[in-house]
Amino acid sequence: MSDHEAARGRFIVFEGGEGVGKSTQARLLANALRATGLAVDLTREPGGTPGAEAIRALLLDAGGSDWGPRAEALLFAAARSDHVEKLIMPALETGRWVVCDRFIDSSRAYQGAAGGMCDDDILALHRIGSAGLLPDLTIVLRLEPQATQTRLRARDGDASDRIGGRAPEYHAAVASAFEGFAAAEPARFVIVEASGEAEEVHGRVMIALKRFEHGR
Amino acid sequence: MSDHEAARGRFIVFEGGEGVGKSTQARLLANALRATGLAVDLTREPGGTPGAEAIRALLLDAGGSDWGPRAEALLFAAARSDHVEKLIMPALETGRWVVCDRFIDSSRAYQGAAGGMCDDDILALHRIGSAGLLPDLTIVLRLEPQATQTRLRARDGDASDRIGGRAPEYHAAVASAFEGFAAAEPARFVIVEASGEAEEVHGRVMIALKRFEHGR
Repeated sequence: MSDHEAARGRFIVFEGGEGVGKSTQARLLANALRATGLAVDLTREPGGTPGAEAIRALLLDAGGSDWGPRAEALLFAAARSDHVEKLIMPALETGRWVVCDRFIDSSRAYQGAAGGMCDDDILALHRIGSAGLLPDLTIVLRLEPQATQTRLRARDGDASDRIGGRAPEYHAAVASAFEGFAAAEPARFVIVEASGEAEEVHGRVMIALKRFEHGR
Repeated sequence: MSDHEAARGRFIVFEGGEGVGKSTQARLLANALRATGLAVDLTREPGGTPGAEAIRALLLDAGGSDWGPRAEALLFAAARSDHVEKLIMPALETGRWVVCDRFIDSSRAYQGAAGGMCDDDILALHRIGSAGLLPDLTIVLRLEPQATQTRLRARDGDASDRIGGRAPEYHAAVASAFEGFAAAEPARFVIVEASGEAEEVHGRVMIALKRFEHGR
């Protein structure tokens, strides 16, 4: 054992609707942090561990019928619990940084604001399942609906997944929810404009991160 | 639409440790009720619907590692939410009776009392997932540990499932928890001695049920 405990790593999450570029920006950020010599785990939700990935598969196939919003919220919370216990917390405690594509605020936006469950219940599931762990910094990527549709069509063609195939009003409710969360907790959130080329957005992410680290 | 709404059906649950005869007694009771002309759904937890059975399979295989107690409790609550929404409530609302092998009190006993989670958290998951639905009557089958071991060995041979293979102290904690729940809510519980032949225990169950119906 060393006399010096490793400093706790940082936990950085990308949030936002479908097609705003979360997974691309998470990858670019993880690579940039690694280039500075940091140890970084890049992960995603739902998923990130074998158990949570199995729950992700179950979320996409309820055995022939849709999950109700309550069962769905419990499954997301179960996947997150496994992910936090087996990957995120052990990484942070040994000084690794964790960059994650979606976390608790996606449950608040999708099952809560857009899905009709109350925010207190979503947060209660997170407290019970994951001791209420919150990211050090949550980067919300913001993109105009028209630009989002263009990106989704370029990515998925005519195919659309369960979430991507919803009505425009649904996507608007999700986007509005993320902006509301950011406004309510400015210390934990930053909103980054996601229009333009990926490298350009990445530049904005790095500026936001430096400002955040400077303010700690 | 008829002027006469169907009376709500009754929801009867068998609880108790492994090997006390719950599934046998649930089947005998369902058959006895059907013989009186009632429409009865016989079901079990975790499971009972395609989605909940898929979660049951996941509970038995966490992708190579064990579920933590919190993820496990969330998965049980998710399975129960699907079961209540798609099978139990629709049946009760159309006047059918539901006889179920295990329900919320198994979560309280296994993930709570024996698993270390607090009872309030287990009940919060049930409120969020299943609107806190409770059985009309919960029949706890009580059997001496020695008799339980004999039955489990006769049923499973040397094989033991994840729960059945635990230490005697664990089974004692579970049995003690069920008796504590029954003592705290005498209006919802009855304890039935589960020693002797199945038909003999079934006779005790029918007596307990008649007393319960008489007292409503």
